[in-house]
Amino acid sequence: MHAYRSHTCAQLNAANVGQDIRLSGWVHRVRDHGGVLFIDLRDHYGITQIIADSDSPAFADLDKVRAEWVIRIDGTVKARDAALVNPKLPTGQIEVYARGMEVLGAAEELPMPVFGEVDYPEETRLTYRFLDLRRDKLHANMMLRSNVVRSIRNRMWDQGFNEFQTPIITASSPEGARDFLVPSRLHPGKFYALPQAPQQFKQLIMVSGFDKYFQIAPCFRDEDPRADRSPTDFYQLDIEMSFVKQEDVFAAVQPVVQGIFEEFGKGKKIDTNWPLIAYNDALKWYGSDKPDLRNPIIMQDVSEHFRGSGFAIFAKLLESEGNEIRAIPAPTGGSRKFCDRMNAFAQQQGLPGMGYIFWREEGYGEGIVFDAIQNPQEKGEAKEAWHERVARKLGKWSSNSVAAGPLAKNIGPERTEAIRQQLGLGVGDAAFFLGGKPETFQAVAGRARNEIGNELGLTEKDTFRFAWIVDFPMFEKTDDGKIDFSHNPFSMPQGGMEALQGDPLNVYAYQYDLACNGYELISGGIRNHKPEIMYKAFELAGYPNDEVNKRFGGMVKAFKYGAPPHGGCAAGIDRIVMLLADEANIREVIMFPMNQRAEDLLMNAPSEPTNEQLRDLHLRVIPKE
Amino acid sequence: MHAYRSHTCAQLNAANVGQDIRLSGWVHRVRDHGGVLFIDLRDHYGITQIIADSDSPAFADLDKVRAEWVIRIDGTVKARDAALVNPKLPTGQIEVYARGMEVLGAAEELPMPVFGEVDYPEETRLTYRFLDLRRDKLHANMMLRSNVVRSIRNRMWDQGFNEFQTPIITASSPEGARDFLVPSRLHPGKFYALPQAPQQFKQLIMVSGFDKYFQIAPCFRDEDPRADRSPTDFYQLDIEMSFVKQEDVFAAVQPVVQGIFEEFGKGKKIDTNWPLIAYNDALKWYGSDKPDLRNPIIMQDVSEHFRGSGFAIFAKLLESEGNEIRAIPAPTGGSRKFCDRMNAFAQQQGLPGMGYIFWREEGYGEGIVFDAIQNPQEKGEAKEAWHERVARKLGKWSSNSVAAGPLAKNIGPERTEAIRQQLGLGVGDAAFFLGGKPETFQAVAGRARNEIGNELGLTEKDTFRFAWIVDFPMFEKTDDGKIDFSHNPFSMPQGGMEALQGDPLNVYAYQYDLACNGYELISGGIRNHKPEIMYKAFELAGYPNDEVNKRFGGMVKAFKYGAPPHGGCAAGIDRIVMLLADEANIREVIMFPMNQRAEDLLMNAPSEPTNEQLRDLHLRVIPKE
Repeated sequence: MHAYRSHTCAQLNAANVGQDIRLSGWVHRVRDHGGVLFIDLRDHYGITQIIADSDSPAFADLDKVRAEWVIRIDGTVKARDAALVNPKLPTGQIEVYARGMEVLGAAEELPMPVFGEVDYPEETRLTYRFLDLRRDKLHANMMLRSNVVRSIRNRMWDQGFNEFQTPIITASSPEGARDFLVPSRLHPGKFYALPQAPQQFKQLIMVSGFDKYFQIAPCFRDEDPRADRSPTDFYQLDIEMSFVKQEDVFAAVQPVVQGIFEEFGKGKKIDTNWPLIAYNDALKWYGSDKPDLRNPIIMQDVSEHFRGSGFAIFAKLLESEGNEIRAIPAPTGGSRKFCDRMNAFAQQQGLPGMGYIFWREEGYGEGIVFDAIQNPQEKGEAKEAWHERVARKLGKWSSNSVAAGPLAKNIGPERTEAIRQQLGLGVGDAAFFLGGKPETFQAVAGRARNEIGNELGLTEKDTFRFAWIVDFPMFEKTDDGKIDFSHNPFSMPQGGMEALQGDPLNVYAYQYDLACNGYELISGGIRNHKPEIMYKAFELAGYPNDEVNKRFGGMVKAFKYGAPPHGGCAAGIDRIVMLLADEANIREVIMFPMNQRAEDLLMNAPSEPTNEQLRDLHLRVIPKE
Repeated sequence: MHAYRSHTCAQLNAANVGQDIRLSGWVHRVRDHGGVLFIDLRDHYGITQIIADSDSPAFADLDKVRAEWVIRIDGTVKARDAALVNPKLPTGQIEVYARGMEVLGAAEELPMPVFGEVDYPEETRLTYRFLDLRRDKLHANMMLRSNVVRSIRNRMWDQGFNEFQTPIITASSPEGARDFLVPSRLHPGKFYALPQAPQQFKQLIMVSGFDKYFQIAPCFRDEDPRADRSPTDFYQLDIEMSFVKQEDVFAAVQPVVQGIFEEFGKGKKIDTNWPLIAYNDALKWYGSDKPDLRNPIIMQDVSEHFRGSGFAIFAKLLESEGNEIRAIPAPTGGSRKFCDRMNAFAQQQGLPGMGYIFWREEGYGEGIVFDAIQNPQEKGEAKEAWHERVARKLGKWSSNSVAAGPLAKNIGPERTEAIRQQLGLGVGDAAFFLGGKPETFQAVAGRARNEIGNELGLTEKDTFRFAWIVDFPMFEKTDDGKIDFSHNPFSMPQGGMEALQGDPLNVYAYQYDLACNGYELISGGIRNHKPEIMYKAFELAGYPNDEVNKRFGGMVKAFKYGAPPHGGCAAGIDRIVMLLADEANIREVIMFPMNQRAEDLLMNAPSEPTNEQLRDLHLRVIPKE
């Protein structure tokens, strides 16, 4: 028999009854039922119940084991009494009567238990990560991650992509974040950098004549701590293709991502229609460049209805160029209570507030809306028909609707009705209004849209909805009035060189994101592979040619020796797994994460170097002042 | 039609004749046959011949293209004349008559050509890596590597292993080499380290309750340059398993490695018998802990025959304890010329020389051996029968053999004959002798064995032979007489705690290497998972408990809370691909390698940091003296 096990802790069932077997695993739980010991023995695969009574030669030894000891059990498989069968456990039909045992690894008293659902402070969990990882949830998350990565690789290979490894100790790769530096011992005073992404290398792979590249690539960014990202390194699915347009990248990526969500989405609905939404439209309609399309609310420009109206604040605003009034429709939100709550939400978010209008049945008050919510809309039933049905049922029916709220009063019934018609709202609904320069209120409008969708139950649950956000502006005006790249400087401007001759602020890039349920899953672009267009784009952003050569010399040089058109994208692995595991904290999907202060509490990193190490690297630490 | 191509450059054949198609690729070669242009158009997949005559609307444009321009061709597929069909090319039956073209990426004059086999200095090749990678050989090497890694992953998954990613920015992992350090910005004066291997993490994964782990893991060692290793980072197949003995690891690894060599070995013979050879035996028999078993020579201890003999040097040596005389048998090496050459080889390698004896036919001189080599041994024919056959054929036959060489004279015929019999040699063979403390001559003996095997054509070609080297000594005596770990301090001593009570130099570890054709492919061990045995082992090597806690705190702590027995190994990916690609230089199997001075000539790394970067990291560079 094998030294440690004849079976795993998930293998034995009724078919094994009577067999002499050997198991090894962790003591998950010990119960002493009056001289009979019940031990749940756990390994990677599952749990098997061990029993021993005082007749067992192993009883005395087993009586000493405590939670999380690693033991080996020799015993006989017995059928459980019908009443004791546990149908939820694959091994629930049997138990193992222990005849012998060996302690393979004892455990001191635990700083946190493995059994049970009790929550522990994150610092404890990270310090004893090896215990935390033994718990169901984290174990399942890690297996999910492993399986997702495996499936991604298989799906990429099946599409003819090749995986290549790119350098990790390399040159600075200006991606907008801060590099981690690595001092060179052989070249005193010089430093390597860890790649923020393999961007330049994957482009070089295309210029080197390979066609379809991918990599599950480690990326490194020295970023200030934030809850939903790793402060040091993270993995991305990195993709690049030659001789492609934007739509070719989409066609390659959708089956992979959709397939992953279908395979690991636990039965949640996957929307297979991935609309293309222009970046500017996304901001206008959803207040976000990563909209959550589970929420049906689409914001609209309603400036015309307020221009010259009796609502002086908005009318005045609209006299200045660039200002706009935007409406957030809120179907079924038509109560003063709800509207006031949303107004308060906007104030919490730093705005003066949101104006609103809501429409109710004349004479019946706002109660009808709540009544309607108590009497659910029927499948296929129009909203107005629904409200009417409920109102009739309750004897509250009236054919006249009334717009309520101070704003409606100020602009008068005609404009109010025009707004109602534009937004397609009716009795029981509301709309909120924000005014000013879009960039000043857009983000809050987006958050209000989320809040409204969630509060009113409009946002679908158990669904993944995707959208490609496209046509990102190439340039933007900075606060000091200069032109700079608004996103990725390496993307090809739509219209090529010709487009760069006109107003930079009208240039859009072949650049795109994939949004899913309010998160950015993927970001990418068709690259600018023509040196002359690249120099011109950088010149517009204020970088002279020699600066371009200095910062991206390797890549620009390569482009001068026969570069193919190419493009690609990168997807955050951690983010995908977080969505699939329904986790809000990135540390729940990483095996050995740093804490938010970028410390590894288990391994004690970072730590003081030795003097010899510093001497080897020709470095001196400058003491804190 | 697609913007860039309807087909790849490897797709078109006789079935496509008459079709209008579109191709994109690199201009591999242009030939102008008197007003008719022939262009070999190359992409990742293959080559297609394009033709254009002066009737073609694309002729004028095509006449301007030069090697390595990226172009798009619109044209019609035509059958080649029977005489012009190229059966070696998948597209050799057809050519494409060009009707239109577009330059997608022009190329300046090339610093090195892509077409042709001309060799270029490595510095040029690395500076223009994107051109070098377009060449057949490197392209094929990179695809081989990608496919090998893919196959390894599939084979590991198929065996139930899970791939997990371990941290890259982490704590120092004392593996014997120098760490690369990464200064922390958030914790001034503190440093992270890049892992020399995920050793501690993979052990922690086992302690965390996972069963079978693997990873194609990046590893980082700040090592001084050497031709056959990367000076910065490299990848290894990292494996760890719980509840296993050494033989379980072997049983898991052999199918993977053997499968890879069968799949990618280009038809070379794979020996499927992987013997277990004790470390000490490997040194004795092969003079190396990574023996090349394609070479049939096995060295032997022949001390007894020299003790008290007339060969004073060896007789004297043997009076001191620890000295030994070792023989390298050299079948078919029986000529003075060969023996003198090998003696000179030993002198080049820093030894005083090698004594030798060779056996020849009396009266016929040594020529018989060379004659024999001219008349090859027949399949199944014994060596003596072969020599006799040749000698008879040449009329040189005699039944008396004579041992030649001064050494034979000194020890006399009886001892000489005893040696011949022990080594199983005969007429036409030779033996070489080295004496002293084995550690002083063993390495040279090993190299002489290689040399002899190659020179005499004894070493098999086109074969991969594997052996597990086992039973590594746990400790060794250092030059200053202290006891230290001889290899991996984390391996379990055979015999456990009890073995550590006796003489440390008699303790062997559950540690193993896989040797293949003279290279170490894999290294691993069953780990010491019991804290008390670990403390004791370190104590013997002179490390007090608090030093152990300081250096390996995370892992030792984990072992105190229920650790399973576990073990594993790590295989060098670069080394495996080098063997399969038959390359001697690691840079031929890495996409973007450093040069031997640890510089990236393409991306310009390492480089000077900015003052701001140094300030952020609280560092100052100490100027060179």
